[in-house]
Amino acid sequence: MNSPYPSILLENAVNEFAKLPGIGRKTALRLVLHLLRQSEAQVEDFARAMVTLKQEVKYCACCHNISDSEVCGICSNKSRDMSLVCVVENIREVMAIENTVQFKGLYHVLGGIISPIDGIGPSDLQIASLVERVKSGEVKEVILALSATMEGDTTNFYIFRKLQPYDVKVSIIARGVSVGDEIEYADEVTLGRSIMNRTPFDESYRLIGK
Amino acid sequence: MNSPYPSILLENAVNEFAKLPGIGRKTALRLVLHLLRQSEAQVEDFARAMVTLKQEVKYCACCHNISDSEVCGICSNKSRDMSLVCVVENIREVMAIENTVQFKGLYHVLGGIISPIDGIGPSDLQIASLVERVKSGEVKEVILALSATMEGDTTNFYIFRKLQPYDVKVSIIARGVSVGDEIEYADEVTLGRSIMNRTPFDESYRLIGK
Repeated sequence: MNSPYPSILLENAVNEFAKLPGIGRKTALRLVLHLLRQSEAQVEDFARAMVTLKQEVKYCACCHNISDSEVCGICSNKSRDMSLVCVVENIREVMAIENTVQFKGLYHVLGGIISPIDGIGPSDLQIASLVERVKSGEVKEVILALSATMEGDTTNFYIFRKLQPYDVKVSIIARGVSVGDEIEYADEVTLGRSIMNRTPFDESYRLIGK
Repeated sequence: MNSPYPSILLENAVNEFAKLPGIGRKTALRLVLHLLRQSEAQVEDFARAMVTLKQEVKYCACCHNISDSEVCGICSNKSRDMSLVCVVENIREVMAIENTVQFKGLYHVLGGIISPIDGIGPSDLQIASLVERVKSGEVKEVILALSATMEGDTTNFYIFRKLQPYDVKVSIIARGVSVGDEIEYADEVTLGRSIMNRTPFDESYRLIGK
């Protein structure tokens, strides 16, 4: 009795779930037992949704976001500002920025950031295709919206250098004290940045809902 | 653009994951994107493990625990005490009790507890088969190890009444202050129980590793 599980089938299922990030073996067992209580059709629906996604997933030919069509809904939306391109790591940032309803431009999904430790170099990312988009001339401004980490910084500088030969403005999202955060608890780097990058103030200034 | 997801395939996969207990939509998306980064074979392994478990799972004919064989490893282990049967809700309690290495008897897995609110009555549980096991005469003591909840209590009393006609001792696991817990922070019900059910003390008493 080396295995704590009374069944190899059960153990396999738990092992598969426990491979997912943030899922430990106890949680994996709880999830597997939940699935086991569902009908066979429901378990098949669950399994099929994953396999179908993996087999049939498509990426937008323009921004490389996950898409069901050749060109995604954002890139094909004529009311959006084609001259503005926001560079993000992956689809989760696209969804977060779309949720703000503040950005009316297009995106460019890199599919990761440069991270030598994980063996991810510039050629593994959609950087060449970003340069091609800029080269085509329609893009006036590229906004960098990557993580504020060493890898994000490296990627920012790499992209900046690659775009320098072209007539395009490169900007980066503002870093500062979060709306709702108390100044006294902000970390020094963030607070320092938010003072350096202060913005003009007048009577029309509103923190929320400008 | 009603859906926040740029792909129906992606949305389906996220929806399926979000049906699992304790998995919200953000976590579901994170898990699905993780699977999407794996190879097709790995995603198929994941999906197949769940479907295979659901299709081929077997339950021990004796204790009703999940098992790969007709009779599970615990029930077929001749070195265990066949006269002692511990009644538990499901496989997770079996694994927790096995981890203590303190119990050498067999189990009886009810498959749930009586819960009128969830529509679970005695006939949905393995109670009749427990009575049959007791009736066969080999069982000398039944230990109730169900949750200390209203439903657990109801189930305890139901089983107790069903077993009364037979020559079997019915006991219940001790409730008291957890080992390592401070008395001052124990809740009143637990502390009251641990005083009522005090045990004899002598020089040989050791809290851990008796």
